[in-house]
Amino acid sequence: MNKLYFLLTITLFGLTKSLFAQNPLVTHMYTADPTARVFEGKLYIYPSHDIVPPEGTEAPRFCMPDYHIFSLENGNTWKDHGRVLDQNEVPWGEKNSYGMWAPDCIEKDGKYYYYYPAKPKNENTFRRIGVGVSDSPTGPFKWEKNYIKGVSGIDPGLLLDDDEKAYLFFGGGHELYVAPLKDNMKEVSKAPILVEGLPAGYKEGSFPFKKDSTYYLTFAHVFADEGYTIGYATADNPMGPYQYRGKIMDNIDNGTNHHSVVNYKGDWILFYHWWDVSGYNKLRSMRADYMTFKKDGSIKKVKPTRRGIGIPTLGDTIQVDRYNEIHRANTAFVGGEEPLGWMVSDTRMNSYVKFNKVDFGKGTAKKMQARLACGQRIGSIEVHLNSPKGKKIAEFSLAYTGGWNSWETFETDLLESVEGVHDIVIVFKSDWGSTKTANLNWLILQE
Amino acid sequence: MNKLYFLLTITLFGLTKSLFAQNPLVTHMYTADPTARVFEGKLYIYPSHDIVPPEGTEAPRFCMPDYHIFSLENGNTWKDHGRVLDQNEVPWGEKNSYGMWAPDCIEKDGKYYYYYPAKPKNENTFRRIGVGVSDSPTGPFKWEKNYIKGVSGIDPGLLLDDDEKAYLFFGGGHELYVAPLKDNMKEVSKAPILVEGLPAGYKEGSFPFKKDSTYYLTFAHVFADEGYTIGYATADNPMGPYQYRGKIMDNIDNGTNHHSVVNYKGDWILFYHWWDVSGYNKLRSMRADYMTFKKDGSIKKVKPTRRGIGIPTLGDTIQVDRYNEIHRANTAFVGGEEPLGWMVSDTRMNSYVKFNKVDFGKGTAKKMQARLACGQRIGSIEVHLNSPKGKKIAEFSLAYTGGWNSWETFETDLLESVEGVHDIVIVFKSDWGSTKTANLNWLILQE
Amino acid sequence: MNKLYFLLTITLFGLTKSLFAQNPLVTHMYTADPTARVFEGKLYIYPSHDIVPPEGTEAPRFCMPDYHIFSLENGNTWKDHGRVLDQNEVPWGEKNSYGMWAPDCIEKDGKYYYYYPAKPKNENTFRRIGVGVSDSPTGPFKWEKNYIKGVSGIDPGLLLDDDEKAYLFFGGGHELYVAPLKDNMKEVSKAPILVEGLPAGYKEGSFPFKKDSTYYLTFAHVFADEGYTIGYATADNPMGPYQYRGKIMDNIDNGTNHHSVVNYKGDWILFYHWWDVSGYNKLRSMRADYMTFKKDGSIKKVKPTRRGIGIPTLGDTIQVDRYNEIHRANTAFVGGEEPLGWMVSDTRMNSYVKFNKVDFGKGTAKKMQARLACGQRIGSIEVHLNSPKGKKIAEFSLAYTGGWNSWETFETDLLESVEGVHDIVIVFKSDWGSTKTANLNWLILQE
Amino acid sequence: MNKLYFLLTITLFGLTKSLFAQNPLVTHMYTADPTARVFEGKLYIYPSHDIVPPEGTEAPRFCMPDYHIFSLENGNTWKDHGRVLDQNEVPWGEKNSYGMWAPDCIEKDGKYYYYYPAKPKNENTFRRIGVGVSDSPTGPFKWEKNYIKGVSGIDPGLLLDDDEKAYLFFGGGHELYVAPLKDNMKEVSKAPILVEGLPAGYKEGSFPFKKDSTYYLTFAHVFADEGYTIGYATADNPMGPYQYRGKIMDNIDNGTNHHSVVNYKGDWILFYHWWDVSGYNKLRSMRADYMTFKKDGSIKKVKPTRRGIGIPTLGDTIQVDRYNEIHRANTAFVGGEEPLGWMVSDTRMNSYVKFNKVDFGKGTAKKMQARLACGQRIGSIEVHLNSPKGKKIAEFSLAYTGGWNSWETFETDLLESVEGVHDIVIVFKSDWGSTKTANLNWLILQE
Repeated sequence: MNKLYFLLTITLFGLTKSLFAQNPLVTHMYTADPTARVFEGKLYIYPSHDIVPPEGTEAPRFCMPDYHIFSLENGNTWKDHGRVLDQNEVPWGEKNSYGMWAPDCIEKDGKYYYYYPAKPKNENTFRRIGVGVSDSPTGPFKWEKNYIKGVSGIDPGLLLDDDEKAYLFFGGGHELYVAPLKDNMKEVSKAPILVEGLPAGYKEGSFPFKKDSTYYLTFAHVFADEGYTIGYATADNPMGPYQYRGKIMDNIDNGTNHHSVVNYKGDWILFYHWWDVSGYNKLRSMRADYMTFKKDGSIKKVKPTRRGIGIPTLGDTIQVDRYNEIHRANTAFVGGEEPLGWMVSDTRMNSYVKFNKVDFGKGTAKKMQARLACGQRIGSIEVHLNSPKGKKIAEFSLAYTGGWNSWETFETDLLESVEGVHDIVIVFKSDWGSTKTANLNWLILQE
Repeated sequence: MNKLYFLLTITLFGLTKSLFAQNPLVTHMYTADPTARVFEGKLYIYPSHDIVPPEGTEAPRFCMPDYHIFSLENGNTWKDHGRVLDQNEVPWGEKNSYGMWAPDCIEKDGKYYYYYPAKPKNENTFRRIGVGVSDSPTGPFKWEKNYIKGVSGIDPGLLLDDDEKAYLFFGGGHELYVAPLKDNMKEVSKAPILVEGLPAGYKEGSFPFKKDSTYYLTFAHVFADEGYTIGYATADNPMGPYQYRGKIMDNIDNGTNHHSVVNYKGDWILFYHWWDVSGYNKLRSMRADYMTFKKDGSIKKVKPTRRGIGIPTLGDTIQVDRYNEIHRANTAFVGGEEPLGWMVSDTRMNSYVKFNKVDFGKGTAKKMQARLACGQRIGSIEVHLNSPKGKKIAEFSLAYTGGWNSWETFETDLLESVEGVHDIVIVFKSDWGSTKTANLNWLILQE
Repeated sequence: MNKLYFLLTITLFGLTKSLFAQNPLVTHMYTADPTARVFEGKLYIYPSHDIVPPEGTEAPRFCMPDYHIFSLENGNTWKDHGRVLDQNEVPWGEKNSYGMWAPDCIEKDGKYYYYYPAKPKNENTFRRIGVGVSDSPTGPFKWEKNYIKGVSGIDPGLLLDDDEKAYLFFGGGHELYVAPLKDNMKEVSKAPILVEGLPAGYKEGSFPFKKDSTYYLTFAHVFADEGYTIGYATADNPMGPYQYRGKIMDNIDNGTNHHSVVNYKGDWILFYHWWDVSGYNKLRSMRADYMTFKKDGSIKKVKPTRRGIGIPTLGDTIQVDRYNEIHRANTAFVGGEEPLGWMVSDTRMNSYVKFNKVDFGKGTAKKMQARLACGQRIGSIEVHLNSPKGKKIAEFSLAYTGGWNSWETFETDLLESVEGVHDIVIVFKSDWGSTKTANLNWLILQE
Repeated sequence: MNKLYFLLTITLFGLTKSLFAQNPLVTHMYTADPTARVFEGKLYIYPSHDIVPPEGTEAPRFCMPDYHIFSLENGNTWKDHGRVLDQNEVPWGEKNSYGMWAPDCIEKDGKYYYYYPAKPKNENTFRRIGVGVSDSPTGPFKWEKNYIKGVSGIDPGLLLDDDEKAYLFFGGGHELYVAPLKDNMKEVSKAPILVEGLPAGYKEGSFPFKKDSTYYLTFAHVFADEGYTIGYATADNPMGPYQYRGKIMDNIDNGTNHHSVVNYKGDWILFYHWWDVSGYNKLRSMRADYMTFKKDGSIKKVKPTRRGIGIPTLGDTIQVDRYNEIHRANTAFVGGEEPLGWMVSDTRMNSYVKFNKVDFGKGTAKKMQARLACGQRIGSIEVHLNSPKGKKIAEFSLAYTGGWNSWETFETDLLESVEGVHDIVIVFKSDWGSTKTANLNWLILQE
């Protein structure tokens, strides 16, 4: 079976309602360098795409053949809009170079402009940057026949200032560059200049944005003893000079990082990547976590969580195996015939898992479901608000489901009506002598 | 679906060639109190059977409805011969009392005598002991109409002395008892007497045997601060007095234990039970580990292992997830569509698993298969002899199998011919920066 | 300087009021095999004496030259009455054999009989047992010219029954023996017999006593896989047969043990030894911990503590470095010019030490002193009742004492009057950023 | 006794030959902000001085009354030249303000100029910077009557360029400043300017130096989520603009840091401070560790060690308790009557301590001494080269010294002649059953 086809079929299957509430954001394919954008109130991601090199080809270590686009549907589902550009469709690109690195997309006057780096053919240049135009954020895009003249480098990062002037940041190496764009968004209006004031060290992945009349230039930044970090600098003018202000994210586990920052419905979110799912740092997965500004405009360091972003509500699968806090328990891949995913496992008397921010809405939820696999017959699972000793709102009596890989959906009435957004803590109860309580896959609130 | 039927279908499925080489011995049902016997060179187990109490019944906490018999086939498969006696088939027993506790079976003059305790009807006695006779070790047995007169208690343990005289040990409480049997094996020839010389404390599960003209009485023994242990005493005469000599096994995880000792093909083996699979101490699983005598006739304490007994050879699945030693890795239930079982997981650069005693036979093995799931594409798995730095005999290059739950069988040539029984060590190799190498289910040696 | 003399001078110095409240009981010399006895309401210990072998001699590994006697004075001081018998004073003994093993002493009709094993001269016997008589429990004893005829072995343990008949238990090996003594206490009235009913395995150190008409025989007992334990057996008659009932103490750190049991002012106390002070298992130190009987006459296992026995009251140094519980702190030898001993060290914010059973008497204590060394100037030490959050009864403000080895005595008023016996918890408070609070040597309650 | 006097007497006592080879550099007083300078090949340190606030005064939290000067004598002793300037001797300073913060000293044309900040009297300014002149690096200095006009701030850092022009860096806050000095070294020749190109965040402790025609500006730098770090920036001109290049040292334990960099006999050394000795972050101790440049002129991060700098040779006390590596052992303050310091403690079988860089000279060392306290009598201490299994060059047989606090000097012949600089590993050997081997204070190589 063709593996790409295989991935796509999994995609359909993977589009359950649970995905938004956990990191990584999608697991049906490997995605890196997520540039998130909000267009007309809707959240989109423009990532690059890592694949396992096709057998028989001479692919580079980072093997990146094409681009997909994702959008957030119904507040909790990442929809894969499929392939928007393949490496061999780049008009000016070298075939089969598997070098489709980090892209960006912005909207101006109702048009969507997609910028991407690729290896040019017949030319001894590492990467050029191309552009396509569409009427829709998800394409199809009309791809320009040639790359942007005068620009040589990777990782386009676009800034559209309040005066409708656009700036293209790019570059990977010890220097980053910026050039103003013409109104057609397809040409630079002046030659690129070096961005001044940045710290020394390898830099790439420039992502600019403006907040409260300050220009932020964020970028991947390598310190010799620390590896890839995400740093940021600020300036009073889009073209600088900038002043370095520190890190947004420390190095994760010794690998690359590349990111974007977006304000979605009032929350600032950092999108970035990690290869915790593949276990291999050339097969990455995009993630997101909330980000906070201090009063002086500085950014608090973001720690990568499993919980990620998104607030599940009635009807959503609450994937508690991507937790904020866990005590006396582990997570593992689900066994048996259950769809792929994680579960809370190795639970014992008084094990608990904390999951922040569940939206109980207007208090209309009457029941809760729990997906459980249980190889014994004693104990219960309690759901508390805010802390392990907080108010108990639901309790499931355990029963033998056929074994630790045999899954059944349990249902119980909520003990009382709850309104609004709360953290929940799932507490496992059993005999003290017992060594396991139950495996837990997910919870669902229901009316 | 009827759950008993469900268990039986799983049984057929579970009878792969791998089961003998791991603890617990079977996982398709819960089994306790394993009495192992060798008849005509073949190994049999007569355990009791724990079930989850049927819904709607008032079953006791230990819910034990019937007996199955197991035999070892081809040196590596535990065959379930099915139910040999149900609680409601006991001629003198109370219906639905779910009290079919530990049985025993011995052979005399070509006949097989099966002894079992049950709750008698119309009588205020805890347990009586019944007997059945068969021409085969796996039955069917002809069950005596009445229990053995003069005997009141649980846990029959039979000794057939070299002079063909048989002795019935039994009792659960602060005292154990012994009575000689008549030649018909169905009646005591003298009234039971107290076994003298045993230590104080609750005792049950008496299992007698003879070695080098010494009589061993082994028994479950509760010390107040330690819980159930397995102890033993020795004597010069079958009926005592005995002298206590210490423990064969320390308490496991605060639960019951009950055991037997058998010499199979020159190896002494201790059969016992633990509830590590169910996580609940009323749902137990039988296990076995090798046991050793010292020169003075004393027994070295046996530690419960996952590895268990049995020496896999060419064609057997070598279930390395039931290891002797593990370093920088874990085991977990297998995910995906793979049959139920464990795998070696969370492997990183230089993780290893040691599995003692693989029989390479006469050196005819040419290939090795490995069952792997791998979510990345870099690294290898090496098989070494005896230690992580011992001679390398095989190496599998890793490849992406579709994910950490997608299993494929890899095959490689042995790097050299190996003869005889050796410990093997499976070493995982990857990039140092990587966080996972591969999940490993099993290995198979092939010609 | 002569080392024995050196030890004695230290002895005088070491006799502060603090020693009773900690393990080991004395540190000015090495002591083993403590036989404790209560005579006329006063507590005595008859131990053996380990020394570092004198240079130039061919001493055995256990090098034991003589006997000292100790008594408890004022409820909190172990008084060393000095050497009561040297190896070269034994009338029938071989010179310089350094084999003065475990002794015992009992009183009958106002006379004190001291029994001891020694190597006999001109005879190929391992040990004989001698006896001496005195009018005082601390001697001087008049030593019998010859050993007790008919008795060959070590470790005399004496039982004086309610009918004034005395029994001598002895022996080291797989068997222990007992013989009744004549009224003169210097001869056996019958030949020794084997003690029946004991478990197999090496045994020594027999110590018999009677409680509620049951005879207890306690003894050191070696299990092959566990090393020396202290076990016990009971009987209805002093000479047996006995029934083994389990262990009083598990093996400590793989070394020997030898013990006695005494009822002092209503508390049962187990005296035993450990070499935790010397770090070498041939240089032991006697210790004591409380022991408890269950209703059925069985003994709860005793765990060796640092806290030991003894209840300090007003004026006693409360040596909290020999604690019941410690959290986020360590203990170490005291530095600087402070007398030898331990201190609580490495204390940080919210470190605490729990010390059970301090006798506040009738509430007349008004002040508390603390011996502190502090290399910084911030924080406090609080004394709470029963738990770290219990009632605060005293608080010391910290101040710089000149460094972490410079000791000063701080004094503070008790915050309220306290009566009776309470556990105390000392809680250390400092800035959260600080890494050390203070070193604490001892506390004293004062009127 | 006056505490200052007390400190001084300890000073004399503390000036043994061992101090150079360990961190912190001195323990007889608290020292911070060490500015190290090499004058005529000799190493000097100009630190500030932390004290415990005098009782009865209203001193600030950082209580810093005066300056001492230190020099390195004979390659291994830090000589305290005593107080060079008291707060109440500052001509223009406010009395008793305890604000004598970080100073600097440079030499020009044979004159030594000492710069220091202090609180000015009759003026609402935080700090002004004064200067004094001397013919000797250790003074006495002639102090200028007034502070340097036009300069307001703390932490003077001086740069004398190759063209003999001097620059004064200073400032504490979000900005650092630099001004050129007149030839008289007492006045600025131009008004100070802001140092451009530095990252955002609080900065202080500027220390400039020049290497290979690059100007390095190093400085204490606070990141909001990390606390004080030591950072650096480089430029082509002394007055900038600079480019930030990263950290020289990460935050230590959440406290301040302040440093200097010096090249001494070909080695680059970073001087800095930590409060690990006092346990309180306002009572600091100066330390030093080697620093390394990469080929591109960047600096490898320095990790604070206990070992520090300095290479002991024949006759020096090798203070192995300030180790590079330790295994199965701890360090603690020395007990008994031994001078204050640390020891290696809690040693067991195969414990070891590694100490890098001991200079064996031309192979003339014949013996080694070890300072040991040993409470038992079995075992040995081996000295190996480079690794625990490296060549064994010395072995000490253990003997009882009178206890774990009784110190004796042991001596043994070297097993072979060793030349040059080597790492040594001290391995402890004892019985496996033993719990302690010996306490070790120091080693000395002897001819």
